[in-house]
Amino acid sequence: MNGKLFLIPNTLGGEDTSVIPQHTAETAKAIKYFIVENERNARRYLSAIGLKGRIRELELFLIDKHERRPKYGAMLAPALAGADMGLISEAGCPSIADPGEEVVMAAHKQKIEVVPLVGPSSIMMALMGSGLNAEQFAFSAYLPIDQRKREDAISRLEAWALKTGQSQIFMETPFRNNQMLDSLLRVCQNETKLSLACDLTMKTEYIRTKAIQTWRNNPPNLHKRPCIFIVGK
Amino acid sequence: MNGKLFLIPNTLGGEDTSVIPQHTAETAKAIKYFIVENERNARRYLSAIGLKGRIRELELFLIDKHERRPKYGAMLAPALAGADMGLISEAGCPSIADPGEEVVMAAHKQKIEVVPLVGPSSIMMALMGSGLNAEQFAFSAYLPIDQRKREDAISRLEAWALKTGQSQIFMETPFRNNQMLDSLLRVCQNETKLSLACDLTMKTEYIRTKAIQTWRNNPPNLHKRPCIFIVGK
Repeated sequence: MNGKLFLIPNTLGGEDTSVIPQHTAETAKAIKYFIVENERNARRYLSAIGLKGRIRELELFLIDKHERRPKYGAMLAPALAGADMGLISEAGCPSIADPGEEVVMAAHKQKIEVVPLVGPSSIMMALMGSGLNAEQFAFSAYLPIDQRKREDAISRLEAWALKTGQSQIFMETPFRNNQMLDSLLRVCQNETKLSLACDLTMKTEYIRTKAIQTWRNNPPNLHKRPCIFIVGK
Repeated sequence: MNGKLFLIPNTLGGEDTSVIPQHTAETAKAIKYFIVENERNARRYLSAIGLKGRIRELELFLIDKHERRPKYGAMLAPALAGADMGLISEAGCPSIADPGEEVVMAAHKQKIEVVPLVGPSSIMMALMGSGLNAEQFAFSAYLPIDQRKREDAISRLEAWALKTGQSQIFMETPFRNNQMLDSLLRVCQNETKLSLACDLTMKTEYIRTKAIQTWRNNPPNLHKRPCIFIVGK
């Protein structure tokens, strides 16, 4: 009988693992084979949620984002041999805007049961906290880096949000957050709502939803703060 | 100084509260004023996560979905008077496909800090577990009940998923799940992927992603099992 592939959420970058449910930690601690993005971070995380002694005995398989033809199928060999495996994200939920999704699809193809565990999702926390429409929403990960292309993308997303009511969620690399905010304040209409959710689960957490014209009066400095942007009606 | 509005996720219907992080439980247990959908369920949940003795001292404000002009602003009076408040969902994350979002928006308008806490989100767990595109996805809550309208909606969502790669997530009332599955198997193309995630976090959890033509050979019975549907490329 095949082992299972457990999907193990990580913290959102904070040191405090009290945001990780006991069930998730206990499940992770019973696993020996992990698929991870960064070996050192994964070992540190497993140790932080209470894994003791066995850290060196773990077998870690690395997901290399830059590999041309990743051998995700082969990584699942321990599961095919009957052992449970864990997929750990660098932050938040594995496989959400994250390389893990191909591992999950490979597991389905090989009839390995996939078991998502509970943990922090910055997308869901930002949406919950925004007060914007959470019955109809879309997530677009990263918008283009080039300013003109980014502002075209923002215009399209805003037009769609205003027409359909669908809230538009996206992210930015933290050191480009202020350029993203500049673009939003330049491109969007006065009455359009913008929600910013920065440093989620941390002491510096900041969540605000305001109309674009209100944000223009006093734009916050988002530089290097992990942030989720939501544009809505 | 205003109190905060904490957004407190609930289990996905199971009795097992080990999926609720310690930080979420500890935060909830320190609160006296709650906004809830059902008083009895809320008290039972707070008791299950460890609230002791004070259950009768709590002040609960009810969200009535059927009320014409709900007084969400007035419900937040304790927060304006300096007390922390909690918004609890009946299942999963409050305000996601759930009446709470207007309370959250009222809090933003009154400059009450909104603090989302970590807990189960069936949408995120289903998406993580699907292996489908989780960089571009949309959630549409419920599709129309009328068969023809439902199948039109499915066709539109499928066409969009195939054109753009955006995974399409939606739900159904559990006693109509089999009609939804019938419609999906009738309307969608052979190669389109369908992921079903039922009974998440429960012992009967079932998550599978297959092509429509594979599902047609052996459709599962989803009757009365809470289920998230995802259509993707």
